[in-house]
Amino acid sequence: MNETIVSPNPSVSPDSALSYGSGLFPTKGLDFRSGRPEVVVVGGRDRFPVVGMAFDDARIKQILCVGWGSQGPAQAQNLRDTLKDIGRPDIKVCVGLRPDSRSIPKAIAAGFDQADGALGDPYHLASKSDLVICLVSDGGMVDIHKELFKALKPGAIVGFSHGFFAGYLKSIGQELSSDHDFIMVAPKGMGPSVRKLYLQGFDTNGAGINCSVAVQARSPERFQLVQDVANAWSVGIGAPITFGTTFLNEVTSDLFGERSMLLGGLWGMSEALFGYFSDVYGKNMDSVFELASSGITGTITDALSKHGILPFYLSLAQGQRARFMRGYEQAYSAFREVMTSIYADVRSFREIGKVIEATKRLSEQPMSNIEAGSLMWQHARTRGLYGKRVPITDDLAFAAGVYVSGIMAQLHTLLANGHNVSEVVNESFIEAVDSLTPYMDARGVAYMVDNCSTTARLGTRLWGPVFRDRLSRALRGPRPTIEEMIRIKDSLFDGSLHRDIQLCMDQRPPVRISIPLEGK
Amino acid sequence: MNETIVSPNPSVSPDSALSYGSGLFPTKGLDFRSGRPEVVVVGGRDRFPVVGMAFDDARIKQILCVGWGSQGPAQAQNLRDTLKDIGRPDIKVCVGLRPDSRSIPKAIAAGFDQADGALGDPYHLASKSDLVICLVSDGGMVDIHKELFKALKPGAIVGFSHGFFAGYLKSIGQELSSDHDFIMVAPKGMGPSVRKLYLQGFDTNGAGINCSVAVQARSPERFQLVQDVANAWSVGIGAPITFGTTFLNEVTSDLFGERSMLLGGLWGMSEALFGYFSDVYGKNMDSVFELASSGITGTITDALSKHGILPFYLSLAQGQRARFMRGYEQAYSAFREVMTSIYADVRSFREIGKVIEATKRLSEQPMSNIEAGSLMWQHARTRGLYGKRVPITDDLAFAAGVYVSGIMAQLHTLLANGHNVSEVVNESFIEAVDSLTPYMDARGVAYMVDNCSTTARLGTRLWGPVFRDRLSRALRGPRPTIEEMIRIKDSLFDGSLHRDIQLCMDQRPPVRISIPLEGK
Repeated sequence: MNETIVSPNPSVSPDSALSYGSGLFPTKGLDFRSGRPEVVVVGGRDRFPVVGMAFDDARIKQILCVGWGSQGPAQAQNLRDTLKDIGRPDIKVCVGLRPDSRSIPKAIAAGFDQADGALGDPYHLASKSDLVICLVSDGGMVDIHKELFKALKPGAIVGFSHGFFAGYLKSIGQELSSDHDFIMVAPKGMGPSVRKLYLQGFDTNGAGINCSVAVQARSPERFQLVQDVANAWSVGIGAPITFGTTFLNEVTSDLFGERSMLLGGLWGMSEALFGYFSDVYGKNMDSVFELASSGITGTITDALSKHGILPFYLSLAQGQRARFMRGYEQAYSAFREVMTSIYADVRSFREIGKVIEATKRLSEQPMSNIEAGSLMWQHARTRGLYGKRVPITDDLAFAAGVYVSGIMAQLHTLLANGHNVSEVVNESFIEAVDSLTPYMDARGVAYMVDNCSTTARLGTRLWGPVFRDRLSRALRGPRPTIEEMIRIKDSLFDGSLHRDIQLCMDQRPPVRISIPLEGK
Repeated sequence: MNETIVSPNPSVSPDSALSYGSGLFPTKGLDFRSGRPEVVVVGGRDRFPVVGMAFDDARIKQILCVGWGSQGPAQAQNLRDTLKDIGRPDIKVCVGLRPDSRSIPKAIAAGFDQADGALGDPYHLASKSDLVICLVSDGGMVDIHKELFKALKPGAIVGFSHGFFAGYLKSIGQELSSDHDFIMVAPKGMGPSVRKLYLQGFDTNGAGINCSVAVQARSPERFQLVQDVANAWSVGIGAPITFGTTFLNEVTSDLFGERSMLLGGLWGMSEALFGYFSDVYGKNMDSVFELASSGITGTITDALSKHGILPFYLSLAQGQRARFMRGYEQAYSAFREVMTSIYADVRSFREIGKVIEATKRLSEQPMSNIEAGSLMWQHARTRGLYGKRVPITDDLAFAAGVYVSGIMAQLHTLLANGHNVSEVVNESFIEAVDSLTPYMDARGVAYMVDNCSTTARLGTRLWGPVFRDRLSRALRGPRPTIEEMIRIKDSLFDGSLHRDIQLCMDQRPPVRISIPLEGK
């Protein structure tokens, strides 16, 4: 790979991701060529008995899931059903909700009963649980953590599905305490997908959402034991493949990814392409919208998800390839420039500090609606332009080149900062083309910007317009110099990276991850 | 004033601004009604002898100005000329430039001679100077401060023209050391204006650029003495009026102001108005540009500078007033929302951390040009649309309402965070309508965004697009609710605030501050 495009930052060590493995679950090696090889844990319904063994080894008799948002219902039900499936009623799964929570009826309907102690006050239940999984919102966790941690049983293991809380502590100069073991299992899909694919796993072998895992044991001797509790949680909620990361790499790649091509970058790019093609097609807004948004989220994303990036490019007709490369060359450096700024803000925890402050202001100053005030998205809504499939024209090939340059810029930015390949490819490519973009294809990009997590909404509203501005100028600006163009082109034709992407794609479940027509 | 619009934040104390004064120079009280009253120092050429007395009291025999950028040439020459004027050759003013500096010939041409020690290596000269005034760029100061401070004579006083360095220290958890006295004199105009108005002061009484002053003495007993060194520096470079602030209030209001209506907000607003009026006037880009930019920076800014905000509004014809109010109502909350985010990022020093990191990346990744890639600014440049004066139409009254709502939102944001009235009105109104906006009227807003300080350029590129996005949606979005509209309208008709603005306007020099047709 071209050194100038991806020069790994030696100060960011991905070591604990690469030392990942299991003493109980079967593993396999992924021989990545562009990064270092990784070990992943192989799950599946036939491994559910091992879940019970891992919990036994760590003396886990009660598991508490706190919160009932996106991940809460999925993970609590999946874990309960897994333990039931292997005949282990002695390991109890319960749900913690405050007495005034509006989610209580939903948890009861899902089978968590107050009468038998499977549903109750989070602080009370925390004092009796051996594994406490925190599934409340990022801002909610910041609010409750002191009281929750005070209520913990000595020696309890604390779980998160996101590295945000660890990042929040860093942003205020603190660390996760060494009084408890902390683990993370981060599913690479939305909560409803975690539940839906788990249920599909009953009759489709390998169905389930892949997860990444991070571990901070309270002593080195406990590392292996605690790591297998995390693996058991991951396999228990249905992950066919589990890979390693660290709390801080996860929160960084996650916030960076949603601000970039998973959401913010995609939104800003659509707006920039809308302006760009409007100059050409004037008031024919249906055609302009196809090129700027629905063609990308539909036809192009389908093809990328099916074939991978380089095979998709090679499948284009010759004239289309030339137009694709023109879009790629024109946009790549602009994406890379904005992403470098985003990565710096996220990695330094400034972005987290900002989210925490802005979340506190939301009660007084709610976020305005993106879709309502925008010509482009209003037009698409009124005219029903979502969810269509269109043929690939030369102009759409150009737009695809712009989109793919954003995905490649995101892959390069994360690899250059030392993230492991599984995390990079999942956060930059698989989660985009298999999960979030198909969802936006059905509902609209602006709809997603208006309805995602608070952390993502706040970041998107800031960075989306910056992408739009930078890309608008890049699309209309001069072509890159010859040297620049060769460097950019080489970055697309990096065979090792595309082979690694394929290897990650091979680890995907055999069913569709996205659930476009259900709620988030 | 409506409490919801401006509720002062009690955690931000402006006390040291309000305890400002002088034991040597004449002062006068400004009886501000919306905030607390303030004391200002009255300068002028007839006070120059007091400058020498203040330097004598603090045993200042040599003054070093480090750097030759915007402020360096102005302040070094003005101080030298003032001391010459009062016959004090024993107090020497010298300029410190590194041996490889490309500015050396310019400093020599301005009369600073290497032979008599008035020009030389900054570290060497620092070891022999009693007052060391740091006038290098924000990033440059961060780079050299350790070596420069190490070279200082014991007991030397250190001066800045900006609170940035103190803010940088805060951003890395440090403070200005208590080994030295630190003072700040921040002129409310660009360096070339500081020089030009000083020269005008020879024949126009009261000509000169107003300054704000901050003081951190190394012991409470030295406060008065050191404060008068700052006052002497301010009066010595020609300030007719000097008012008090703190290092942190200055850097906050300065970075906030340039990211808001002084530059970033004005740019984003112009782009949003360009899109808004394009929907109406289609391809008649000359007219659209008039409404979106040159009408505001020309005719409207002239009128605001001459009359003040409320008198300008009252001078409009009845139909124009209605259109003005419509623009004001539609945009005010959008401006306020973005400004709240900016203020939070600046006040928490996140914005400074970001600037420092981004400055380091500039050698590898230079900032792209705003004007080159933009339809709107390219059109204006090609067609020569800058510097015109147009009559006020109904549409321009609407655009003026949008612009003024941004200025009012900025005033309200700073007042709500406890900044003193002189600082607020200077940073939000006077510096805009008297200095920066007229400059942009002649050269173009995008030109200024491409050519201002690194700190301002970095911030503008981030926040400009956010203003554009938020305002575009606000202009096309629904009207505010009745309650909201009353609250917004009241915020414009706040008589106390407009009286205070008038009082600040009365303190302005009697000559034009802006120098549109010279370099920065």
